[in-house]
Amino acid sequence: MREVAILGVGQTQFGELWDRSFREIGIEAGFKALESSKLSSKDLSALYIGNMASGAFIDQEHVGPLVLDYSGLAGHHIPSVRVEAGEASGAMALAQAYLAVASGAYDFVVVGGAEKMTDVPDERGAAIASSTMDQEWERVFGASMASLWGLIARRHMIDHGTKREEFARLSVLDHENGSKNPLAHFRNKITLEQVLGANPVAEPLGMLDCAPSSDGAAALVLGPLETARKYTDTPIRISASQIATDFVALMHRRSITTIDSTVIAAQRAFQQAKTDPSHLRLAEIHDSYSIGGLMALEDLGFYPKGAAGKALSDGAVGTGGKLTINTSGGLKAQGQPFGAVGIAQVAEIVRQLRGEAGPRQVSGPEMGLAHNVGGSGATSIVHILSRVN
Amino acid sequence: MREVAILGVGQTQFGELWDRSFREIGIEAGFKALESSKLSSKDLSALYIGNMASGAFIDQEHVGPLVLDYSGLAGHHIPSVRVEAGEASGAMALAQAYLAVASGAYDFVVVGGAEKMTDVPDERGAAIASSTMDQEWERVFGASMASLWGLIARRHMIDHGTKREEFARLSVLDHENGSKNPLAHFRNKITLEQVLGANPVAEPLGMLDCAPSSDGAAALVLGPLETARKYTDTPIRISASQIATDFVALMHRRSITTIDSTVIAAQRAFQQAKTDPSHLRLAEIHDSYSIGGLMALEDLGFYPKGAAGKALSDGAVGTGGKLTINTSGGLKAQGQPFGAVGIAQVAEIVRQLRGEAGPRQVSGPEMGLAHNVGGSGATSIVHILSRVN
Repeated sequence: MREVAILGVGQTQFGELWDRSFREIGIEAGFKALESSKLSSKDLSALYIGNMASGAFIDQEHVGPLVLDYSGLAGHHIPSVRVEAGEASGAMALAQAYLAVASGAYDFVVVGGAEKMTDVPDERGAAIASSTMDQEWERVFGASMASLWGLIARRHMIDHGTKREEFARLSVLDHENGSKNPLAHFRNKITLEQVLGANPVAEPLGMLDCAPSSDGAAALVLGPLETARKYTDTPIRISASQIATDFVALMHRRSITTIDSTVIAAQRAFQQAKTDPSHLRLAEIHDSYSIGGLMALEDLGFYPKGAAGKALSDGAVGTGGKLTINTSGGLKAQGQPFGAVGIAQVAEIVRQLRGEAGPRQVSGPEMGLAHNVGGSGATSIVHILSRVN
Repeated sequence: MREVAILGVGQTQFGELWDRSFREIGIEAGFKALESSKLSSKDLSALYIGNMASGAFIDQEHVGPLVLDYSGLAGHHIPSVRVEAGEASGAMALAQAYLAVASGAYDFVVVGGAEKMTDVPDERGAAIASSTMDQEWERVFGASMASLWGLIARRHMIDHGTKREEFARLSVLDHENGSKNPLAHFRNKITLEQVLGANPVAEPLGMLDCAPSSDGAAALVLGPLETARKYTDTPIRISASQIATDFVALMHRRSITTIDSTVIAAQRAFQQAKTDPSHLRLAEIHDSYSIGGLMALEDLGFYPKGAAGKALSDGAVGTGGKLTINTSGGLKAQGQPFGAVGIAQVAEIVRQLRGEAGPRQVSGPEMGLAHNVGGSGATSIVHILSRVN
């Protein structure tokens, strides 16, 4: 397989975009990604789209050709593929597009992620958000996604001595970062006291531990690494693209305080990229619930189990710490349009590696990791990206 | 890219399976496919699933890991990817799995297609079935999938002199073939008079011109061709796997009596397989509406535009004719579980090429084609399969 590079990135505003349709945001992200490379749409061989639930949210399946069509590309008749893996649909689309370019089947591919979530009533939205758990063995008994993560959080506190304040700090950090990201859903800073005092959702989790429902889209342009400099001065190498799965229902897992799919996807990714967690200083981690972000720091291999909470409290994790995470604002502040999250994470790492992250820019990163999770952990996908020197 | 072979096929009963769940039929098809090869589940590198609308039909997204899990494979943590392209979701999943094996990323992959359609009320099912057209520019004005195909049929009659009886004959042929397929949804034979006299759905189409809503699943095992004989005595080569797209809304197309995506996918497939329509004597064509099947005979290159109707009437198409089609019973009689159709078509071609089609067996086929369509033609996918001598 040949090496694959990211040649361009594009992203829409994330938020409650009531005046914009699914197809509009999908197109905007794709064109922005093309514009940021030197490619034109006629150079494209295929389109991949990560989307979780357009059928349920907007009564529209078959969104692959829909976005292609409204981008003015239907006349090219190129393949357009929708990929779904719950909230990891974006990274799953990237993983498939990566394989397609690596195989030699396609040269230049746009891979986008998009979701339009705020056109349904809140209770319907919550039901759709829970459709990535096991309907017959979890949801039917009343579980919601928030309640599962609440159970996980309580168990993590009991088994590993994790304190309520420790995962609350992740929301504070996300909002601090989001305040510097003009595309973020939330740009207000919040305090630890606000997170701790927010209305309870599924104890110990409160409203400010939970990422919002957002509309938004993001896109990347992929191509072969060997010719990448023709199309951009700053190609970014995809050093690893790895997927792992696990049991869907929480009750079947080996442990509920470790997401095995994340542990295994990360191990595979570090092996593919020939590196290890000690060399990574930049990551976008999946924190749809703050406890999930804390666990990701452990399961990705950055901290031993039970040690991430203290690292967050001590400031070892965050801008300026040993490990900088979620400069985008993470899922909590940048927002959570399900299908777009995995692509937006990678887009932020690309901006950082290119030195284009503006007030969020960290100093001279060479490598970054993006971690996207579907459901309560049945799918995890890890990408490692590197500067090409 | 390396060559890819099909090592095994499996399929459930198609029909109204009210006593069986999505996951049950998905698992059955996958295990049957594995059983028909000499592989065991621990040999698998990945799972691909074609599914159109599980979120809308059964409130369940994230069906990739769900089927993997309930197959007893969650402990392997292998990637499981859901792919969606409307009613072409099955063939789209196959096209992605083919690329993944061809690339060398994975060795042995199960690719399945599944849909559970009959657990919703009929009017809800019809709405979901129309979610592959353009919601904002077709459905919102009252179009249904049947009405679009009715328009197409009327235009084809006017422009090409096609007679009502000519496409009605396809339904008769499908039911004749379906009567020999124990897995078919409908096994009753029907007469031309019955098709012509059936209740109108969208004139000129009547109820017996329209494929049913079905539950069902089918699966294939893929692997590298070079080692295929270790796992089966009759490996089948994937000689071509090609996707093409077109405008989603009918009103934007160059013509509504030609499905351009089918024309182009077929041209690409014949080129990849280094053959042409004159060498093909066996095909499974997408006939969700009888007029669609008639047009496919033209758009795939078997007949000039306007000539397929007469060929159907003359008996040139059908068992024993120049071209044998839809020995499975086609979408009309075998049934139409959306995500499973494209895989079931390929499974039937494999059975024919292996000489395992029982009373439906045609004499000594060397090659066969499968044609799967999404929406009213925004996606078409063509696979060409060959015996390995």
